[in-house]
Amino acid sequence: MPKESAKVTPWEVSGRVDYERLIKQFGVSRLDDKIIEKIGKHAKEVHFMIKRKIFFAHRDLKWLFDEYEKGNKFFLYTGRGPSGKVHLGHLGTWILTKWLQDRFNAELWFQFTDDEKFLFNDKPYEEIQRWTYENMLDVIALGFDQKKTHFIIDTKHANLLYPEAIRFAKKISFSTVKAAFGFTNDRNIGEIFYTSMQAVPAIIPSVLRKRNIPCLIPLAIDQDPHFRVARDVYPKLGYYKPAIIHGRFLPPLQGIDGKMSSSEELTAIYTTDSPKEVERKIKKYAFSGGQATIEEHRKKGGNPDIDVSFQYLRMFFEPDDRKLEQIYNDYKSGKMLTSELKEILVGKINSFLKEHQKKREKARKQVDKFLFKS
Amino acid sequence: MPKESAKVTPWEVSGRVDYERLIKQFGVSRLDDKIIEKIGKHAKEVHFMIKRKIFFAHRDLKWLFDEYEKGNKFFLYTGRGPSGKVHLGHLGTWILTKWLQDRFNAELWFQFTDDEKFLFNDKPYEEIQRWTYENMLDVIALGFDQKKTHFIIDTKHANLLYPEAIRFAKKISFSTVKAAFGFTNDRNIGEIFYTSMQAVPAIIPSVLRKRNIPCLIPLAIDQDPHFRVARDVYPKLGYYKPAIIHGRFLPPLQGIDGKMSSSEELTAIYTTDSPKEVERKIKKYAFSGGQATIEEHRKKGGNPDIDVSFQYLRMFFEPDDRKLEQIYNDYKSGKMLTSELKEILVGKINSFLKEHQKKREKARKQVDKFLFKS
Repeated sequence: MPKESAKVTPWEVSGRVDYERLIKQFGVSRLDDKIIEKIGKHAKEVHFMIKRKIFFAHRDLKWLFDEYEKGNKFFLYTGRGPSGKVHLGHLGTWILTKWLQDRFNAELWFQFTDDEKFLFNDKPYEEIQRWTYENMLDVIALGFDQKKTHFIIDTKHANLLYPEAIRFAKKISFSTVKAAFGFTNDRNIGEIFYTSMQAVPAIIPSVLRKRNIPCLIPLAIDQDPHFRVARDVYPKLGYYKPAIIHGRFLPPLQGIDGKMSSSEELTAIYTTDSPKEVERKIKKYAFSGGQATIEEHRKKGGNPDIDVSFQYLRMFFEPDDRKLEQIYNDYKSGKMLTSELKEILVGKINSFLKEHQKKREKARKQVDKFLFKS
Repeated sequence: MPKESAKVTPWEVSGRVDYERLIKQFGVSRLDDKIIEKIGKHAKEVHFMIKRKIFFAHRDLKWLFDEYEKGNKFFLYTGRGPSGKVHLGHLGTWILTKWLQDRFNAELWFQFTDDEKFLFNDKPYEEIQRWTYENMLDVIALGFDQKKTHFIIDTKHANLLYPEAIRFAKKISFSTVKAAFGFTNDRNIGEIFYTSMQAVPAIIPSVLRKRNIPCLIPLAIDQDPHFRVARDVYPKLGYYKPAIIHGRFLPPLQGIDGKMSSSEELTAIYTTDSPKEVERKIKKYAFSGGQATIEEHRKKGGNPDIDVSFQYLRMFFEPDDRKLEQIYNDYKSGKMLTSELKEILVGKINSFLKEHQKKREKARKQVDKFLFKS
């Protein structure tokens, strides 16, 4: 697998992602034991996605907690590009965000970048608007605190965002976005401008309250280039640089390269999939680290490290370390068959989705309350 | 004077402008007698700025009046980049716009491009906001019909403009703006995006009323490149291309090259200048077509074609053709001295400004009524 072929931009992730390499390439810091300890000290526990380094890198977390210790509390900012259905790969960041909200009693600004998805895709504006609504339901279903959570939609909250975005834009040249995102001259001028809209929510509470408030952004590592570009601008405008915690990608069903993708139906499990669809997708498509025959599997054992079902358990569906270790050992030894491993996963996903889909329906009545009103 | 040195972009006009050349270069049509006749037929008169070809070119005026004759009435759209004081050079377009509003009972959308002026200048955001307010007073003072006139400020009406601007932006590449405006890669990404914000007001009434309404844009010729870029996009989005009527530049005091400029204090007469300042500026700086001595002037006569004072009368302050001709002949023959010509102009300007400044003060109470409320 040539590592050179891996591509990680906000709009494309392909190939086997080398996370160690990304740490160097993006200039982020490894989430080491010292910083995890600091999180644990204040959160009173450590989320398994952090413990297992599913969130593996960061920017300025030490500074963020130093400020926190001085009584300078942070708010959270994350988002969603609403171009299609939400799948399991999207949820990890938001689940961690909810945990952070609960543990730190933090306000959350959640941005729906409908402009981005309109500008970077072939889809019509109206379709993006429908996805924005549908995606909001998934976010609400995760249980964010309605009193502390503000949804902003780029085109609906342009009065709030655009006047700030031009302050960022003024300090970012085409050369800079060209280098950061690999843009060529045939890119449309909305794509070129867009990164300044994504920079803004990290200062919105500071703008509204007229004081500088620290910000923590949980995101998947592919979104980091936006903040690499905007990072130097924040202090020039009189604001803190936001701290960031970076997550890995949930792999697609077909194997551990790239990431689960909304636009490729068969790589993903959607939050709206039925129990039957989930079962079919996992059984039919989830890449297996097992052997070709039961006999061989019993003898040689499976490889959980490349087994997509096991990875879903590790990254998302089995928070219990001891249970996970048991599955790992049983699968590796050949005691557990691929079919049994998949059975466990299907059960976990379907019980999660049953609950999620119920909450998702209830969310239809809550959307308006989550939308920020200026 | 090498014609090659003339430069006409939305952000710079310098050198002796060759309007014939611009007609070819920009691909606009000459405002010929046939189209003037058509305007006169419907307006019941022809404004002197049209008759004298101060407005000298157009796009699609024939189509606009064909639609008008079918009962498909147009609205007007013009604007102001609020980066400093308003001077006489700005007023011509707005005076013609008011005449068009009156004669055609037309709605006017007036855009204040505070984002543009922030992005393209060194001035701080707050200063641009102050100029926006001050400039609105000048526009109101010209007597636009408050019931039919809507002010939109890009940063304040971003909810209205930005969602439409991204539709234009999606269809305009960096290559296109690079060619149209001469941008290089070091331009900021707000400057690059900006042209899509200027395209939008030409469709706003159509968007709001959900039907296609023809638009006429009176503007100074330097603004044409914005619409040259956006022109092909309108039909792709389902709207008419806006018609345009193009004006010449009021020359700076120093001579008939370039245009009066807000940023060069001594080239311009501002709407807030006192009678004394006007008198001093005209007498001291207004480039004269007269001879070096009175004797020589009486003998050889002056040259009104290069005389800035005469040009101000022709382009703005003497609507009466016969009076203007008299002045022309008297100056050319040497009967009228430069000092006498300047005296006439100073009187005209000061009587205009006295009235304007009174209305400008009253306008402070009207601003809110002119601002568009969605």
